[in-house]
Amino acid sequence: MNFSNILAALDNAKERHLEDLTEWLKIPSVSSDSTRKSEVAAAANWVAEKLKTAGIATKIVPTDGHPLVIAETPPISGAPIALVYGHYDVQPAEPLEDWISGAFEPTVRDGNLYARGATDDKGQVLTHIQSVCDWMATGEPLPLQIKFLIEGEEEVGSENLERMLPSLRDELACDCVVISDSGQYAKDQPAITYGLRGIATYELKIQGPSQDLHSGSFGGAVMNPAIALCHLLSSIVDSEGRIQIDGYYDDVQALSEAERAAWAKLPQSDDQFAKEVGVDALFGETGFTTDERRWARPTFDINGLTSGHQGEGVKTIIPATASAKISFRLVPNQDPKKLTTALQNHINQHVATGVKATLEPSHGAPGMAADPESRYAKAAARAIASAFGTPPVMIREGGSIPIVTRFQDVLQCDCLLLGWGLSDDNAHSPNEKFCVQDYYRGIKASAILWTELGKLNESQA
Amino acid sequence: MNFSNILAALDNAKERHLEDLTEWLKIPSVSSDSTRKSEVAAAANWVAEKLKTAGIATKIVPTDGHPLVIAETPPISGAPIALVYGHYDVQPAEPLEDWISGAFEPTVRDGNLYARGATDDKGQVLTHIQSVCDWMATGEPLPLQIKFLIEGEEEVGSENLERMLPSLRDELACDCVVISDSGQYAKDQPAITYGLRGIATYELKIQGPSQDLHSGSFGGAVMNPAIALCHLLSSIVDSEGRIQIDGYYDDVQALSEAERAAWAKLPQSDDQFAKEVGVDALFGETGFTTDERRWARPTFDINGLTSGHQGEGVKTIIPATASAKISFRLVPNQDPKKLTTALQNHINQHVATGVKATLEPSHGAPGMAADPESRYAKAAARAIASAFGTPPVMIREGGSIPIVTRFQDVLQCDCLLLGWGLSDDNAHSPNEKFCVQDYYRGIKASAILWTELGKLNESQA
Repeated sequence: MNFSNILAALDNAKERHLEDLTEWLKIPSVSSDSTRKSEVAAAANWVAEKLKTAGIATKIVPTDGHPLVIAETPPISGAPIALVYGHYDVQPAEPLEDWISGAFEPTVRDGNLYARGATDDKGQVLTHIQSVCDWMATGEPLPLQIKFLIEGEEEVGSENLERMLPSLRDELACDCVVISDSGQYAKDQPAITYGLRGIATYELKIQGPSQDLHSGSFGGAVMNPAIALCHLLSSIVDSEGRIQIDGYYDDVQALSEAERAAWAKLPQSDDQFAKEVGVDALFGETGFTTDERRWARPTFDINGLTSGHQGEGVKTIIPATASAKISFRLVPNQDPKKLTTALQNHINQHVATGVKATLEPSHGAPGMAADPESRYAKAAARAIASAFGTPPVMIREGGSIPIVTRFQDVLQCDCLLLGWGLSDDNAHSPNEKFCVQDYYRGIKASAILWTELGKLNESQA
Repeated sequence: MNFSNILAALDNAKERHLEDLTEWLKIPSVSSDSTRKSEVAAAANWVAEKLKTAGIATKIVPTDGHPLVIAETPPISGAPIALVYGHYDVQPAEPLEDWISGAFEPTVRDGNLYARGATDDKGQVLTHIQSVCDWMATGEPLPLQIKFLIEGEEEVGSENLERMLPSLRDELACDCVVISDSGQYAKDQPAITYGLRGIATYELKIQGPSQDLHSGSFGGAVMNPAIALCHLLSSIVDSEGRIQIDGYYDDVQALSEAERAAWAKLPQSDDQFAKEVGVDALFGETGFTTDERRWARPTFDINGLTSGHQGEGVKTIIPATASAKISFRLVPNQDPKKLTTALQNHINQHVATGVKATLEPSHGAPGMAADPESRYAKAAARAIASAFGTPPVMIREGGSIPIVTRFQDVLQCDCLLLGWGLSDDNAHSPNEKFCVQDYYRGIKASAILWTELGKLNESQA
């Protein structure tokens, strides 16, 4: 095998690689939007066609929601099996008016490709697809079997995939899952992520009077549902950022001293961080650094508030209802189901008189911790160092990829989180982007990763 | 003068009276909606035409906002002058989907006329216009001079009228202002209202990061603006309904023992009240009855909440901004400007680190107290007793008619608040209505009021 041929082929294909991603990003595959069902399906078809065209055995597997795309290259005796996992669905693009160029009109500006899904996750997962497709086009044999599982419900909790995973155990059997759906530590400082936070999301609704009431005639007579909501939400987290639900911190896995020491060496500046996100000062639970708080401490966030009059001008009403979309990030060892029970108890105890509170759990997933010293992690570190010119740092991430712990449990495999994104990529925000250079470096790192992983069993044999 | 002719004429004109109101209600004169400017003007023109057609000297006076309609019948020597004040503008009709029949498609069901503005205030002010127009049509002379001031900005704070009032002092000179923009105490229990609460409205905006952030990557690192808003709003009022702004209760006029005793005799049931508004239990400041709380105690309400994701599904963001529309009801002697300063100080002291809070005052007006024993009040009581068959009770109301205290100050006149509405009329809510029978009784009471007021100076001469 002449690996330099493969790298040269990848190098020569940059223009096409960008065109491919642009084409895929044009499809508004918003999985949470029930009116976008056909677009979500189109995004699945796009990636299935891409894989098929390269000669990879590919199928589209229906689910109760959006379909899975499953593919695999031929088995290679004596080599490990890698499973690339990613998702073709994207977050909603709203508020649309805040996008400089259209959310589904991919546009390159200043070396970045702007579009919903650019970094989360179409651009990132496509790096692995490109490296395998182009490798196969050279006629050289792949050094290991590579499977693909590209799903369409990551942004809504991966519940169908979770449910179906046991039945796909044989088909997806692998030694190591490879996921690129996270970030580098900083520009030009790649990272391997060995931990993720879990998540639990809810909608909390407060019902007061049967309809909006005149705040003059009724103000002082009935509980205002929006006030009840604010009091209830405020009771969940104190002004220091500590969550007040009974037992919330009981199962929290403490940070090891080794981790805290390693992270303390990372180049980080709270001032710079604050500047990048546009705030005067950062904020969070006392006693922890910013990276510790966002990677390894549980949090509570309000994702949306809705009540009463939102239009122009004044409307002096007591709104009939008020609601909030809320979410918790969990750390490894916290159980989202246990949280739901504790949260419901908290609400029952703290809800005001004269209104009714309803808690609707949406999706939940536990956090994940992998071994930063595994042979797969070391192989990935070599691949990244070679492609990026800098060895990766070992970090955790604050986001959640709900399916990852399920892979570990069901497939009994290791897990590599190799993020090519950046913290200012605006995943889940307007003007999401992906650095075009990192897209290319990701493709190169992916190709090198296959050679590094291919060597593993041999060297151990 | 043969007054029975006039009453007979009013009795025979019921069908036309209803048609008139229906026509006026079809005009969507939402003063807070800048896209409705021409409809607001059309509602002014409608009432001006109605007065002119009856032979009353009428003019439309432009303001910096929506115009005033001013009219007057000829002076009557030796009799007092009454000024009828009302408004042709209405509240926004949203949420439109909650209306059983269209907000601007007046529909009679079960003896009620349903439409935005039916009770607040087109239907109520029209009672006085009908009584005067029809009186004049009989050819009988009116027993006193009656002036009309119908404005188009009551629902947005009457600021232009307030500003212009001193320059209109001579034109509007009167002994007594007559206003029907409030309610009876209960069905078939009419009332005269001798006190109103004041109001102060604001928009409170919290600005956090420069854009929505991924709650996984950033949760725990920055203050969530929606949480900051909830904490800030919660700091304004405690769980007992007591407002926590420094000095808020300092200027509050205490309830007299006589008032508390008189109100305690009113037929009222908290259980019935709760049932009517659709809640399990009423709520408010401890130590006061429901009527005391809503008529004579200051309150804080959240009228609307807006932040982050409000659509279908889950969007795990830290929203960049969060905002609330809030309002306070004030009692006589509380100054809305003083409140604005105190509220701004409260916000400065209580706003969380890492976000910016902006308070935008909208409109404010002090509360009003009139003499329930004045000769005008007694004349009105006689008129109402005759038209409704029941003597009115003397009450206060929780709503605000911002211009009323200005009339008292600038015109040095008495003030009669004669409400024909009912507490379940849904003013400011979907399915606003006005009882057709009360519309007719209001017209009759108005006509009798003119005779009663006409006698006053004679009897004292």
